[in-house]
Amino acid sequence: MRNDGKKRNSGCPVTYGLDTFGDRWSLLVIRELLLRGKKTYGDFLAADEGISTNILADRLKHLEAEGIIVKSRDPDNRRSFTYSLTQKGRDLAPIILEIIIWSGMHDKRPHARRNVLKKINKDREGFEASLRSPQD
Amino acid sequence: MRNDGKKRNSGCPVTYGLDTFGDRWSLLVIRELLLRGKKTYGDFLAADEGISTNILADRLKHLEAEGIIVKSRDPDNRRSFTYSLTQKGRDLAPIILEIIIWSGMHDKRPHARRNVLKKINKDREGFEASLRSPQD
Repeated sequence: MRNDGKKRNSGCPVTYGLDTFGDRWSLLVIRELLLRGKKTYGDFLAADEGISTNILADRLKHLEAEGIIVKSRDPDNRRSFTYSLTQKGRDLAPIILEIIIWSGMHDKRPHARRNVLKKINKDREGFEASLRSPQD
Repeated sequence: MRNDGKKRNSGCPVTYGLDTFGDRWSLLVIRELLLRGKKTYGDFLAADEGISTNILADRLKHLEAEGIIVKSRDPDNRRSFTYSLTQKGRDLAPIILEIIIWSGMHDKRPHARRNVLKKINKDREGFEASLRSPQD
């Protein structure tokens, strides 16, 4: 959930985290970047969950302002933009991995996906390190 | 952010997690229960962040429906209720701890609180185990 750019001032680190990235649409954009190699506005719009254009535009702006993502011109097409995670954004990897582990324990729906969970179970440390290190 | 009780059906574990507990008010209630020993409606209402009564009532109902918390009569005062985390709720501890660690790295505000981070740094495994084990 957004708080319109104003951080609540309790000084609590849980609150800080949630004010920075803690709404489900923001985290879905982070998931697309971190785990699925997606990087354009169109990519995010095409995600299964069906984010609307106005929410997506708002969250991209917010994540950029928070220093979680950066926007740059696509070198292959100077008229379009790509997004990538900053180090601050890549450092969210352990949180995302813990969410996946938790869901693996508690999501009993038959169609629950487990492909990333398998990677975590196989080599959590290596997988996490690969997500946190700068891409190319 | 809530999705009004309906889970998005992508099967993605990140989405599942966010649909279950992933709005900042839900996570603040979980923080109060997990880290601060709070357990009544009045306790949650008194948290620094100033949650409103209607949002609090909604989130408590949601978390109960998701099996994250249970509501029971206060044995000391049969007219009031207390809330506690289920095992599914306590299993959120590693996610909360990773959020605290991330904020410790990236929250540069001078009033950022670090008391829980200190406990994590001292003995993460033991601290996490104590949070995840059933209370009394």
